[in-house]
Amino acid sequence: MSLNYRVILQILGVVLVVLAMAMVPSMAVSAIYHESRAMTSFLFAILPMVICGMLLFARSKPKSTVVNLRDGMLIVSLSWILASLCSCIPFMLSGSIPNFSEAFFESASGFTTTGASVLENVEILPRSILFWRSFTHWLGGMGILVFTIALLPSLGINGLRIAESEAPGPTFDKLTAKTSDTAKILYAIYIGMTIVETFLLMLGGMNLFDALIHTFGTVATGGFSSYGDSIVHFNSLYIELVIVFFMILAGNNFNLYYLLRKKDWRSFLGDTEFRAYIGIIAGFSILIGIFLTVYGQTNSIFEGLRQGLFQCVSIMTTTGFASADFELWPTCCKMILFLLMFIGGCSSSTSGAMKVVRIVVFYKLIRRGINKRLHPLAVVPVKLSGKNMQPDTVSSIASFIFLYFSLFLIGSLIVSLESVDLVTAISSTATCLGNVGPGFSLVGPMSNFSLYSDPATLLLSFLMLAGRLELFTLLLLFTPAFWFPDRQLKH
Amino acid sequence: MSLNYRVILQILGVVLVVLAMAMVPSMAVSAIYHESRAMTSFLFAILPMVICGMLLFARSKPKSTVVNLRDGMLIVSLSWILASLCSCIPFMLSGSIPNFSEAFFESASGFTTTGASVLENVEILPRSILFWRSFTHWLGGMGILVFTIALLPSLGINGLRIAESEAPGPTFDKLTAKTSDTAKILYAIYIGMTIVETFLLMLGGMNLFDALIHTFGTVATGGFSSYGDSIVHFNSLYIELVIVFFMILAGNNFNLYYLLRKKDWRSFLGDTEFRAYIGIIAGFSILIGIFLTVYGQTNSIFEGLRQGLFQCVSIMTTTGFASADFELWPTCCKMILFLLMFIGGCSSSTSGAMKVVRIVVFYKLIRRGINKRLHPLAVVPVKLSGKNMQPDTVSSIASFIFLYFSLFLIGSLIVSLESVDLVTAISSTATCLGNVGPGFSLVGPMSNFSLYSDPATLLLSFLMLAGRLELFTLLLLFTPAFWFPDRQLKH
Repeated sequence: MSLNYRVILQILGVVLVVLAMAMVPSMAVSAIYHESRAMTSFLFAILPMVICGMLLFARSKPKSTVVNLRDGMLIVSLSWILASLCSCIPFMLSGSIPNFSEAFFESASGFTTTGASVLENVEILPRSILFWRSFTHWLGGMGILVFTIALLPSLGINGLRIAESEAPGPTFDKLTAKTSDTAKILYAIYIGMTIVETFLLMLGGMNLFDALIHTFGTVATGGFSSYGDSIVHFNSLYIELVIVFFMILAGNNFNLYYLLRKKDWRSFLGDTEFRAYIGIIAGFSILIGIFLTVYGQTNSIFEGLRQGLFQCVSIMTTTGFASADFELWPTCCKMILFLLMFIGGCSSSTSGAMKVVRIVVFYKLIRRGINKRLHPLAVVPVKLSGKNMQPDTVSSIASFIFLYFSLFLIGSLIVSLESVDLVTAISSTATCLGNVGPGFSLVGPMSNFSLYSDPATLLLSFLMLAGRLELFTLLLLFTPAFWFPDRQLKH
Repeated sequence: MSLNYRVILQILGVVLVVLAMAMVPSMAVSAIYHESRAMTSFLFAILPMVICGMLLFARSKPKSTVVNLRDGMLIVSLSWILASLCSCIPFMLSGSIPNFSEAFFESASGFTTTGASVLENVEILPRSILFWRSFTHWLGGMGILVFTIALLPSLGINGLRIAESEAPGPTFDKLTAKTSDTAKILYAIYIGMTIVETFLLMLGGMNLFDALIHTFGTVATGGFSSYGDSIVHFNSLYIELVIVFFMILAGNNFNLYYLLRKKDWRSFLGDTEFRAYIGIIAGFSILIGIFLTVYGQTNSIFEGLRQGLFQCVSIMTTTGFASADFELWPTCCKMILFLLMFIGGCSSSTSGAMKVVRIVVFYKLIRRGINKRLHPLAVVPVKLSGKNMQPDTVSSIASFIFLYFSLFLIGSLIVSLESVDLVTAISSTATCLGNVGPGFSLVGPMSNFSLYSDPATLLLSFLMLAGRLELFTLLLLFTPAFWFPDRQLKH
């Protein structure tokens, strides 16, 4: 079956117009702060984007409005690449990030809600550019496409396939029968969280600008800050706790909030992934708290737990805010953070990496393997939240995990061609692939990614996109099987 | 079904006597070199071992000679632990390694054919102790138990189960119907390789002692040397090539040599694992050769390829000899070696780590995952050497790989509690679990493992044993399911 190029182009046209509209608030910020160059650069981005978008939309007259799986994958992948490219325009024209590779890295880092930056000094940037940078988190976090899906039914296009390939995590429970309704509900929760967190941060003494920047970074599990030293800048327990709370919310499965609407607390608290998520956060926070105190990094166990909790949540939800320079922490604490970079938050959340549910299946497969050695003939299904999983789902999760490790290892190998140490190479790859943000050594929480050459910067951007789009969505475009699906299957 | 403790004790008695006999050549070496203290320490080891072994054998009158799967696992695990404990006696009594944890580490490193050492200066040790140390490689390499299996039929005990849990790798093709015959054939190949390599190394100018030491290290893919700077000491292309050749032979599936006896070259060269093994070695050797030359580490591409080939083969076969201090190499070369530490040699060889066949399945599962995304309803079996694999075998390999990564990560976390950097912690764990030998940073090829505390030293010893016994064999002993197999299965 051939790809429905006309619908694809039409939807990309919509994406362009939506992106251009999304730049308007940032242009308003540039007007407020009298940043004329930044304002011009937004204008020079918005105008061509609107024109191109409208032309694409008007000129593509689809014969059929059916979007199949491959169309959906192509739409999702191209949208994220397109968004990252468009976002380069204001970065480059305003002179904030003149180099293309770096501007693309920063844009991809924004839209994939990674939060890794090439900027050596964010505080000297125009505020409207900072605002846009963080706003890309917010847009990316919920997914421009979920946004677009809410519009699609009016085009008569069934958006279900798109949601399936975009939704982070293996399960995207249908909250409601219609995808556009799903999108609207998720969207409402997301906006609600944004408003409440902004309000609470302002209560803690932040001005509106900082509160919005850090809220965008939190609810999208992104991590861009308006300060070089991230959350350390505020030195406020209250602000840290607010951010921790909303990071946990943002890293949780959004479908569960629908259960709360129905007051179904039992299903909420009984969810295997949720329990594992909270358990991992609690366990590792306490461990780090103890280690920080024992190794003399902090003066009291309270201070240790405070830093441990914030950093565990920040890294595990793949946000990447720093309330301390964890590069200076003892090796064991860094090792825990390194582990968390691979785990990530829950499925159907804004977080990245492998997702807790896959780690749970990973663990269950090991347990089944152990049982199988003792009882070779026993048929032992893998259960999740009390239900047997389909063998196909289990094997799909296993192949995801293998692909994740492979990309990590191959990526690390290529990145290590740069003149950096092993820890820098490995942690750069892990943090970009997992959409986390900071790494260790030369790319620690108080450092940045400006040290890399253009090819390495683009490779890391690619890894961010691959990680965000659940690996297969993007990588399939590089397989012959995607473009020639009717050829015979090879094994 | 309860464990057959009487047979288990009887076999352990045989193992003790065999081990004691195996110490006799080393005692002879101590006599030749007039090392009286070492000679006494061997005597004080041999006598109690023989007495205990004979008592165990004589006192345990088995009611039944049936060895089931669980008995086999227990026998194998306890034998390796017992061997490592007994080998501590000469190390400690001779004053070479007075500390118990370190002596146990060195013994386990020998019997598991790892080759990691706690010794800061091997050249000052008695030669008989060095001989014993390398001889434990040789014993471990083939497996004391395969040795024992050749004796077992005379006891009327069916040794098949033992072989299954000891054989490195997922497939242990039955060469012949009777396990004891299999053991004898493998044993003949092994002894043949030992004799030929010793002869060839002596041709290259080594004395008999050094030739034997390095042959033991090679054919067992161990890596203990009698010199602190390993193969660098000889600075001879001929010696390097001989060792490379035998490392490749030792890391290959021994079952394939049986095909050669039948002159079945087609099956030999068509074997998927063999092709992947040679392909990985060739590819990465050339890459390292190019990188070493480009980054100016070596003066010529020839020198780069020479070092690349030796080090690739040494690490991939999990031998661990060093023909150069690769700690000084560029990061990308170290990254390749780090990857190879996880891959390891072929199944049914003396090498460690995950084994090539599992990496092949790993890769095929990723490919199947990709196909499944495009053709969700297609039934795609995983093929190996042209044959469909059983789903159970595939899932068993997946759970092995998951368990391997888990042990690596948990081990790294615990090792990182020591005051070492991340690279040291991670590479120590990877190299011990994979039975390789050297790591990076503080445990590089010219360094040693003496920096670790007693608990960390014992943990690393445990990882060596777990890795050698294909994870499940040893780890199962720590599960309630092993000891209470009749309880209901939990999922």
